[in-house]
Amino acid sequence: SIDTKSKAVTVETPYGELIEPYDQLMYATGAAAKAPDVPGTDLQGVFELHTLNDAIALKSAAGTATRAVVVGGGYVGLEVAEALTLRGVPTTIISSRSAVLNRSLDPDIGAIVTEAIRGHGIQVIGSTRLESITGANGRAVGIETTNGRFEADLVVLGTGVHPRCDVAAAAGIALGPTGAAQVDDHQRTNVPGIWAAGDCAESRHKLTGQPTNPQLGTVANKQGRVAGMNIGGEDASFPGVLLTFVTKVMDTEIGRTGLMESEAQSAGIEYAIGWASGTTASGYMPNAEPIQIKVLAEKDTGRLLGAQIVGGPGSGKRIDVLATAIWAGMTGQEFAMSDLSYAPPFSTVWDIVMIAARRAADAATK
Amino acid sequence: SIDTKSKAVTVETPYGELIEPYDQLMYATGAAAKAPDVPGTDLQGVFELHTLNDAIALKSAAGTATRAVVVGGGYVGLEVAEALTLRGVPTTIISSRSAVLNRSLDPDIGAIVTEAIRGHGIQVIGSTRLESITGANGRAVGIETTNGRFEADLVVLGTGVHPRCDVAAAAGIALGPTGAAQVDDHQRTNVPGIWAAGDCAESRHKLTGQPTNPQLGTVANKQGRVAGMNIGGEDASFPGVLLTFVTKVMDTEIGRTGLMESEAQSAGIEYAIGWASGTTASGYMPNAEPIQIKVLAEKDTGRLLGAQIVGGPGSGKRIDVLATAIWAGMTGQEFAMSDLSYAPPFSTVWDIVMIAARRAADAATK
Repeated sequence: SIDTKSKAVTVETPYGELIEPYDQLMYATGAAAKAPDVPGTDLQGVFELHTLNDAIALKSAAGTATRAVVVGGGYVGLEVAEALTLRGVPTTIISSRSAVLNRSLDPDIGAIVTEAIRGHGIQVIGSTRLESITGANGRAVGIETTNGRFEADLVVLGTGVHPRCDVAAAAGIALGPTGAAQVDDHQRTNVPGIWAAGDCAESRHKLTGQPTNPQLGTVANKQGRVAGMNIGGEDASFPGVLLTFVTKVMDTEIGRTGLMESEAQSAGIEYAIGWASGTTASGYMPNAEPIQIKVLAEKDTGRLLGAQIVGGPGSGKRIDVLATAIWAGMTGQEFAMSDLSYAPPFSTVWDIVMIAARRAADAATK
Repeated sequence: SIDTKSKAVTVETPYGELIEPYDQLMYATGAAAKAPDVPGTDLQGVFELHTLNDAIALKSAAGTATRAVVVGGGYVGLEVAEALTLRGVPTTIISSRSAVLNRSLDPDIGAIVTEAIRGHGIQVIGSTRLESITGANGRAVGIETTNGRFEADLVVLGTGVHPRCDVAAAAGIALGPTGAAQVDDHQRTNVPGIWAAGDCAESRHKLTGQPTNPQLGTVANKQGRVAGMNIGGEDASFPGVLLTFVTKVMDTEIGRTGLMESEAQSAGIEYAIGWASGTTASGYMPNAEPIQIKVLAEKDTGRLLGAQIVGGPGSGKRIDVLATAIWAGMTGQEFAMSDLSYAPPFSTVWDIVMIAARRAADAATK
């Protein structure tokens, strides 16, 4: 607990209660896995996914498992499904929406990703909710869902995390609509002398100004740096997020930055869409891989708002180029005439990120 | 020839001279290989490198060659040396400077690239000039240089190209200091109704405003589009170049954008340098490859000016992120706090491009 009047923190340790006074307090409690509220989550063979110990236990169990179910189609769920499949465990992903990654990708590009994952031998059961985990002799043997029963002696709960803010809330630190601590751009909470950063703190979206709780290591790292500099007497600001991320499942790479359609809509930003399908290298090169990009540009101005990428090796990190253009406020037309690199093993003459951006911006301004 | 008074072009064809009148004339003659003025360039087994036919003839000759010399350490020379080496032909690059790619990379990063190329089994002889190609029975058998004799039955002249502007100059089209046609940002030459684009036309450097003749497909493509749109009645501008490029030799990738040190110096721009050495993926990932980045940032402002990259697979195309940040006028500090993607197979939590940029900008503004 935090006593903000006497400026002291009470911590439980293996040696009893410890009371520690503070001048400046950094609240960096991170997030905790959010287990679904269904029967059976305490059975052997059921794993959460948040800590290193979770991963060690899961890796050990994967050695003897015959069939796995991953509940949740977020990027952590996908990465676990990949790891289990590569270890030879037949794996099924149960997703509450029709496509995986539904919080990060629009449904249309999510559907492409979902099909690609199926192509890698991972079963994806969409539009399905977990109802219970069933067991025998204290061990998981399957799950019951809104879509029937699935056998599994290994069940991974990848149903997300929530910011660990109970202690903060009890101390009077204001939480925002995401459930994480509200902070200003210096990582100050509303309580003088208390700072928050990382998964337990909110961020502002760079384009909409709205609070988000992205749960990304990149954001946590930067916020921690900003808080540390300010506590140390410097003057640093955290400039916000585009929610940029990259992940992969087997040789399918996925990237996203900026606004999805649903986010632009709730922010009241009108947009047009540009799609481009092509290759990561010149088509005649042996390493050319298919890639698809969807770009959103603001109506009338052509300003770039968001991008989503799916494709083979060499696709995912291209999202950084678009993230930089969006960060800088570039229009799709300006970006398409900027000077990116080209050689046949690396791209087409107009890199596909430029083609998608120009199409979006032309559609937005025509 | 071009008769600008009667507005007609005279062309030699297999069927005789053809006179073609024009309203608007697009001058797009490209560039021609610049063979060194030494004895022996007409021997069998000596190849230039500019056209598709050059490449077809070279590929055929590579099948029987026992030892090759590539004269010139530009990126085309490197790409040919790679191709010959992969075909099992022992290959030596003769470079007039101590390091290869001396027009595109600073000497320090050029030295790293040169060592990497040597590590791939390609001999690089630096600070050496070609004096003659020696032959027997009309066939090349070796070269004489300022650094002694090298045996070779295959000699590739990768000594650059020059813009093909003889016809333009004869018609009164003004050429710039690079020897290419001077154009405005609409690709207009000084002669009304005549446009130029591509390797035969100059470009403006985005940062210095100085004329350049980059000989890059990306620039030619964009200039051609701009000229075509303007000829068709639209109003398009070519915004300039950062001289961004990417290439590879075996698994060493090389990228560059913006100003080198020598270019900043001749433009009178004061700068500081940031270096970062790291990996393309998180260090514990099996696909993590070494990467080194050098970034230049403007003194006092921290504005990003240029970047050079050398490293393993996954290094080269990272130059596009820096090219976009430079294009947008971002400082290294702003770029380092922007939102790039991260996952262990793709980068470290702070992508190395951010680390190098921040170091350069911090050095520039401290």
